[in-house]
Amino acid sequence: MDKNHQSCRIILASASPRRRDLLKQIGLSFDILVSDCEEVLTTTVPEEACRSLAEQKAEAVAAALTREAVEKEASGRDTSAPCLIIGADTVVACEGRLLGKPRHKEDAAAMLRLLSGRTHQVSTGVCVIRLPEGTRTSFAESTDVTVVPLTEEDIAAYLETGEPYDKAGAYGIQGWFARYVAGIRGDYNNVVGLPVGRLYRECLRDQLSSLPSS
Amino acid sequence: MDKNHQSCRIILASASPRRRDLLKQIGLSFDILVSDCEEVLTTTVPEEACRSLAEQKAEAVAAALTREAVEKEASGRDTSAPCLIIGADTVVACEGRLLGKPRHKEDAAAMLRLLSGRTHQVSTGVCVIRLPEGTRTSFAESTDVTVVPLTEEDIAAYLETGEPYDKAGAYGIQGWFARYVAGIRGDYNNVVGLPVGRLYRECLRDQLSSLPSS
Repeated sequence: MDKNHQSCRIILASASPRRRDLLKQIGLSFDILVSDCEEVLTTTVPEEACRSLAEQKAEAVAAALTREAVEKEASGRDTSAPCLIIGADTVVACEGRLLGKPRHKEDAAAMLRLLSGRTHQVSTGVCVIRLPEGTRTSFAESTDVTVVPLTEEDIAAYLETGEPYDKAGAYGIQGWFARYVAGIRGDYNNVVGLPVGRLYRECLRDQLSSLPSS
Repeated sequence: MDKNHQSCRIILASASPRRRDLLKQIGLSFDILVSDCEEVLTTTVPEEACRSLAEQKAEAVAAALTREAVEKEASGRDTSAPCLIIGADTVVACEGRLLGKPRHKEDAAAMLRLLSGRTHQVSTGVCVIRLPEGTRTSFAESTDVTVVPLTEEDIAAYLETGEPYDKAGAYGIQGWFARYVAGIRGDYNNVVGLPVGRLYRECLRDQLSSLPSS
């Protein structure tokens, strides 16, 4: 695995275990650093909303790291090592409505009834900030997901699994809900929470010395 | 989880850890039983080939279980409990060529060069046999997968991960190769190795008493 060595520090600005697993899946080493700042929704256009939230998450962590670097520099320590901070946010849109995480059981049931028998869009915004320069790259990726018609029994059974409550749109495609997904069009990992393929190719690949010059 | 209790025994006739994980993902309990009989490829049409191989796998396990039941019955034990045997096989087709598991490194590299920058088809055949009746249900599901152009360096780095060698088409979409997948059209889990959604809805749901009559 020597040829796949990475020289640049990567920081994931997200507490989501699913995003962590996806970055691990493509063989990257990284740290997790989450800011406790509250993100603000400034638009209801799905691609703009998730991209803005991703930027806010990455920026909060970048600001904290920059403050820390200034303090270290004042004490004479070297802080010039480059680092890439990844922020991400996922939203679900169906029939013109933006679905976040359900607040309670009835909210989750209402979301699942809306998704039943329809094709909806899952959008993940990604923002990568390179320090110390502060260069920012961001994009939003959307995937269509088609759900089969759900009966009230299906919904009741799914609510009992406990899966819906920490997920935008009240479902996790990578869990039990796979029973009810007819198919997707686009990037599956984007639905899980992080489009690692595009993230890698457009934001990380050139930054990481993944291969020695040959 | 009481309401999601299953009353019927399920047997997965496949040694694939990925198929095992997918069945677990949708909340099913099952046993694994693999026959050592050699399957025979009788056609090169992808959907027919994988469906036939899936049938051969399920039938070999069904035959073994039926023999066992006959022996138990002869000794006076009850063998009337129903059971569902699931066989599955996945093939990759690209530019009219059927790709199995690579035999060695150069074979894997050639497959990856063929997939580079193209959309190919992944087909999984599924066969479910219900015992003691012997009723057989089977289908083949296909998903389009688009791979970005790969450099020789990408291919060399991917071969080093060791992922390609036990997988049809020399890649695993659920692993490091996600770096290079632009998107799919259809069922993601079908590419991983088992279309659990369709399997559940068309072959298992009505057979399992997943919810008590209310």
